[in-house]
Amino acid sequence: MSFRLTGLNPLFNNFYHIINNNDAEAMVLTPADVKENRNSYVFVVDMPGLKSGEISVQVEEDNVLGVSGERKPEEQEEGVKYFIKERRGGKFMRKFVLPENANLEAIKAVCQDGVLTVTVDKLPSAEKKPKIVKVKHSSRL
Amino acid sequence: MSFRLTGLNPLFNNFYHIINNNDAEAMVLTPADVKENRNSYVFVVDMPGLKSGEISVQVEEDNVLGVSGERKPEEQEEGVKYFIKERRGGKFMRKFVLPENANLEAIKAVCQDGVLTVTVDKLPSAEKKPKIVKVKHSSRL
Repeated sequence: MSFRLTGLNPLFNNFYHIINNNDAEAMVLTPADVKENRNSYVFVVDMPGLKSGEISVQVEEDNVLGVSGERKPEEQEEGVKYFIKERRGGKFMRKFVLPENANLEAIKAVCQDGVLTVTVDKLPSAEKKPKIVKVKHSSRL
Repeated sequence: MSFRLTGLNPLFNNFYHIINNNDAEAMVLTPADVKENRNSYVFVVDMPGLKSGEISVQVEEDNVLGVSGERKPEEQEEGVKYFIKERRGGKFMRKFVLPENANLEAIKAVCQDGVLTVTVDKLPSAEKKPKIVKVKHSSRL
């Protein structure tokens, strides 16, 4: 088996919740892009052959975005002979640890042409008030 | 780079027509299934992110089925930062040598959810007449 995962980033990759080897393999074999723009985080995942209704997108444990889906095995047709079988079957899965400023109430997911795009808006950043340091009076000058 | 090609079959795989390294890489990184049923050969190719109009299916040199398409590079948005970038860009491509009984006038291609399916009907097999061996008369019995 070959592993294509590159650019491991502790913020968005989360392997602590993997419970079995099948999930681990599914995560390694499901390529994703994760990017940030001014207002949101965007997760793009290749899931060829899956329709919107066959994909699950959920937030687990308050800050883990999980996407998964499964390519159904083909019905066994009588008399069919395979010459080449490279496309993998089974599960597609990824989990991403979300940053603190991810707005869990503003998550959108769209699947088109076998590509899932999940957009998580950022919470508006709290205004940073200048920190005022009180100047004490000292008589020892 | 990892190579996922397995089950190389000389009937359906054709690497003689590769003209450059980019095409070779695209062919290795585009997974396909090839199967045969009673009336046709079926080629299934994962091409996530591509629409029907962006995929080319053609027969070259009388017996080579070629499928190709290219994932357009994303427009560079200002201020976008990538944390993970595993999805590959560029070309998807495969070429398959067709068997002699492939009917080049009966090829159908459908793309759905990022998966291209090309069906090539078989030519009706010529009736096999019994081969008659003439019995010569021999006087030397």
